[in-house]
Amino acid sequence: MLSFTPGMAPDDQATTLVIHCEGPGKDTPAVGENESYNIDITRRQALLKAPTVVGALRGLETVLQLLAANRNGYYLPGVQIQDQPRFPWRGLLIDVARHFQTMEVLKRNLDAMAAVKLNVFHWHLTEDQGFRVESKKFPKLHQLGSDGNYYTQEQVREIIAYARERGIRVVPEFDIPGHSTSWLVGYPELGSAPGPYSIERRPGIFEPALDPTREEVYKFLETFLGEMAALFPDAYLHIGGDENEGKQWDRNPKIQAYMKAKGIKDNHALQAYFNQRLLKILQKHGKKMIGWDEILQPELPRDVVIHSWRGTAALAEAARKGYDGILSNGYYIDLIQPASQHYVSDPLPADSTLTPEEAKHILGGEATMWAEWVTPETIDSRIWPRTAAIAERLWSPRNVTDINDMYRRLAVISLQLEELGLMHKKNPEMMLRRLVRHDDIGPLRTLVSVIEPVKEYRRYQMRPQTMLSPLTGVVDAATPDSEAARRFSWMVEEFLNDQPRFQLYRSELSETLAMWQTSGASLEPMIDRSPALKEIKPLADNLSVLGETGQEALSYLTLETPPPSEWREKSLAKLDEAGKPHAALEFAVITSVRKLIMAAAEPANNRRAQPSGN
Amino acid sequence: MLSFTPGMAPDDQATTLVIHCEGPGKDTPAVGENESYNIDITRRQALLKAPTVVGALRGLETVLQLLAANRNGYYLPGVQIQDQPRFPWRGLLIDVARHFQTMEVLKRNLDAMAAVKLNVFHWHLTEDQGFRVESKKFPKLHQLGSDGNYYTQEQVREIIAYARERGIRVVPEFDIPGHSTSWLVGYPELGSAPGPYSIERRPGIFEPALDPTREEVYKFLETFLGEMAALFPDAYLHIGGDENEGKQWDRNPKIQAYMKAKGIKDNHALQAYFNQRLLKILQKHGKKMIGWDEILQPELPRDVVIHSWRGTAALAEAARKGYDGILSNGYYIDLIQPASQHYVSDPLPADSTLTPEEAKHILGGEATMWAEWVTPETIDSRIWPRTAAIAERLWSPRNVTDINDMYRRLAVISLQLEELGLMHKKNPEMMLRRLVRHDDIGPLRTLVSVIEPVKEYRRYQMRPQTMLSPLTGVVDAATPDSEAARRFSWMVEEFLNDQPRFQLYRSELSETLAMWQTSGASLEPMIDRSPALKEIKPLADNLSVLGETGQEALSYLTLETPPPSEWREKSLAKLDEAGKPHAALEFAVITSVRKLIMAAAEPANNRRAQPSGN
Repeated sequence: MLSFTPGMAPDDQATTLVIHCEGPGKDTPAVGENESYNIDITRRQALLKAPTVVGALRGLETVLQLLAANRNGYYLPGVQIQDQPRFPWRGLLIDVARHFQTMEVLKRNLDAMAAVKLNVFHWHLTEDQGFRVESKKFPKLHQLGSDGNYYTQEQVREIIAYARERGIRVVPEFDIPGHSTSWLVGYPELGSAPGPYSIERRPGIFEPALDPTREEVYKFLETFLGEMAALFPDAYLHIGGDENEGKQWDRNPKIQAYMKAKGIKDNHALQAYFNQRLLKILQKHGKKMIGWDEILQPELPRDVVIHSWRGTAALAEAARKGYDGILSNGYYIDLIQPASQHYVSDPLPADSTLTPEEAKHILGGEATMWAEWVTPETIDSRIWPRTAAIAERLWSPRNVTDINDMYRRLAVISLQLEELGLMHKKNPEMMLRRLVRHDDIGPLRTLVSVIEPVKEYRRYQMRPQTMLSPLTGVVDAATPDSEAARRFSWMVEEFLNDQPRFQLYRSELSETLAMWQTSGASLEPMIDRSPALKEIKPLADNLSVLGETGQEALSYLTLETPPPSEWREKSLAKLDEAGKPHAALEFAVITSVRKLIMAAAEPANNRRAQPSGN
Repeated sequence: MLSFTPGMAPDDQATTLVIHCEGPGKDTPAVGENESYNIDITRRQALLKAPTVVGALRGLETVLQLLAANRNGYYLPGVQIQDQPRFPWRGLLIDVARHFQTMEVLKRNLDAMAAVKLNVFHWHLTEDQGFRVESKKFPKLHQLGSDGNYYTQEQVREIIAYARERGIRVVPEFDIPGHSTSWLVGYPELGSAPGPYSIERRPGIFEPALDPTREEVYKFLETFLGEMAALFPDAYLHIGGDENEGKQWDRNPKIQAYMKAKGIKDNHALQAYFNQRLLKILQKHGKKMIGWDEILQPELPRDVVIHSWRGTAALAEAARKGYDGILSNGYYIDLIQPASQHYVSDPLPADSTLTPEEAKHILGGEATMWAEWVTPETIDSRIWPRTAAIAERLWSPRNVTDINDMYRRLAVISLQLEELGLMHKKNPEMMLRRLVRHDDIGPLRTLVSVIEPVKEYRRYQMRPQTMLSPLTGVVDAATPDSEAARRFSWMVEEFLNDQPRFQLYRSELSETLAMWQTSGASLEPMIDRSPALKEIKPLADNLSVLGETGQEALSYLTLETPPPSEWREKSLAKLDEAGKPHAALEFAVITSVRKLIMAAAEPANNRRAQPSGN
């Protein structure tokens, strides 16, 4: 049993954990803060040395992760560590606009960020679907643009203080000129069309945009951004700038006339003009500007940071021109990709042709939690544990790329994050209980463990919902990057490599496949009792099919009889059918079952089969 | 899929849920508020009628609970309900002093209270172990008495508003003259011994008490209670008054001299004098006084409410004398008793000899969550779902006493409480994952499902800890009132009643017992890997023993061979051994296994055994 007595010991020599912090570091967390630390653990004591408080915090997280146990008790292994981050900007964007996230959600995610050494919370505060921060200067922004779901300025300060205590910067984003419907609900006069406007409830890209040709708009922004610049202490302020298609501009004769008069040749140039004006406002308020790829236009001053959703090529091009940049392409965690895929996205890949001097412009990256389909109940399972893999990519050397080892460690971190109150493991189980209306969720848990929400932007196409829909379906309880599927895939590999015996993991595979068969059947009465489960009926049926087909393949591989000639095609056809998504969910084990079928249908395998006595 | 569009429909007739609320009711929730409501659900619509907003809220909770489902969809059954509470005071006390509880904990528990129609949050704010509310008049109270864990006055107002929106009164308790160590840390001059004092870290009853003979103490209380009376809008203020043993008074010559001079004959009389003074202070600030049994002394004015930890006899005696009273004896949910036991505790039992007029003085009762051994992580599983049974006792007619039906409905409510964010199901699983350091907790979950923390005050005796100890052991993950044990007990009853066949539930029982056997064995390597599990080694071994012994009994009951003559004694001896608590945990299935052994050893049973072919 671990038990610590709070308090400080007076004697360095008699103490088991000594922290030497050389100085306080910067008062407000800032880019380029020294986050390095050394750890030296001997038989006698653990010594943590850091030049700054933030460095000491990073080191303490490592100490916690070093804790190990054996039969005799808990211990810290004897290690020597010199550590420092590869990139100074390691962020997580949380979109609190499309779905509002409570203070609790933000705080526990800041805790998790600190645990994996992320240092930037990018607070995406405004969108077509919501304006989430109190403005005392223009109160109709939050009053009419948020359905009452916004952060008071006091709450903002609370979050900033909470982040600061963890060495995390808070970079706010006010996305303009597009993505601004919620601003226009209270202040339609800022828009490029007369309005009236109402809060957008659908996902997508919308037309409303601020009018860059009217002086009143800049007066408004000067006052509003001044208010926000005073509220948020970070040196940077993110102005978004993405996905403005300019359709309102095209249709507005006054704007067209203005462009003609000023010689502004197209909407890109008009947005560049808008950004130039914006930049002056930010400079006046002492802020550096950061915005998405689109803001990179000729004549953009060099002290603006480019945030790239487009990719490393765009980022490198900006760096060559002398712009600092951060990467989010490859880190879109809302797209339900596996951690392995994010893990190989590198802001400064090995094949980069940037000079060392140019490479310094690559500041790091940010995972982006866009919130079309997440609520406070589900957001943790969309962010964690995968974001820990991105955090490692941004902190550790480029050559740390062993994916199996990453997943091994990710499972450990995932458990540790629970201690901080993260709900990524707790809530999916609860959501299944709610769907089943019973504690006994066994068969549904089995199904959900091997399916994943469909990737990229297919969810909305398959299962249209609005921002007001309850996100309480099986697709919301299912999580990305199925661990059970990964384990199954690994067992299949080992089993097939164990030719001609085909014994390794045979019994585990057979047990798993049998469980799929029975779970599929057991789900039927559950579905009958719970109308919300009706949509997964085809998945339940297909789970049985996958189990059955897999079992057949296993049998053919370990018996002398080869499959009948038509078995292969029939099985592959069943698999194709089972591979189709339903209810915006798809099986993550199709490839592995296909491998079993292909191997079983390979004449060589059955000929070589030598059933052993054991 | 359920989907609601927010908004109000203009037409009563076309609408599916109509709420008729006749008036707003009282501005601040108060004793005697009309909480009644009528529900009438026909094919066409659901109609909810209530005289007050609070009544409508109570009715809406019922509507939510009525939601049912079948193969065709979700529906509300056609019912007519006229409902109103039996008692006007239905409370939950949360002790936030011994272990501080976060705002989140309070809010989600207020949500749960509303769901089960409780209407008083009794906020136990001060104790020897902590002073949890900000005082602007005497800031050293919270600054030195709380380790920084206290509620600001703004947070207090936030909780009061949150409770009010749910029709819940907030009654604060400032426990004096005993239980006051934390007050004296900052203001030792109020104590009956010179001090200095430090925050108490142990559980128990302690000596520090305010000095009732000094005018300065009353001046202090007048100012402090005035501040609190303004902060808390409820008509009542709880002054505790319990468990003051007066040892500091006995040893203080000035106090003794004062008593002699004033003719105060003993400590009870001295406390009565103190309460008289306190009462005047409260009256001045417009508050009614409520306190624990001990305050009931001769000459106590009739408008003081008695809060009884002693029992219904004490309460009835007070009622006969004309005092209003509420019951907590029987509702001490910290003592790990089953819901069935709380359910039969009635503030006004069937055998009460009170006249109808006297009976009106029995206002209701309060479940008490004393917090020696609960943290924000574990408190929900100590309060819920058992408190829902107490809530029903206080709301429903006296003759609603079917325990099996109560448990059936309790399981439903327990799942519904999860939707409100309650952690009583989520957190125990997480704590097991943390103890095992792995996702695969199967065998430990099996063990924990049939053990319970030891009852009453035995935990501290068996496993001493302080208020600073981590509450992260198996005893903290285990929950009261084991559902698995109840199910096992029920199956054993049915099985034994099915004589002479002994077939009913035979296979389920056999499966369960087999699982105990294998889980006990599987726990060994887990325990080896996790030092925090070492203390449960004997329980793991005993789980195997219980499984094995139960299996033997099952066999003897269904085979023709009777057990050897010494089997009964040997098995009962094993059972006695297995029944001993370890790590402050004990098996909840001992009685059921004993029944199996006794039945198996009964010669008649084996003689009559007729194994059937099926």
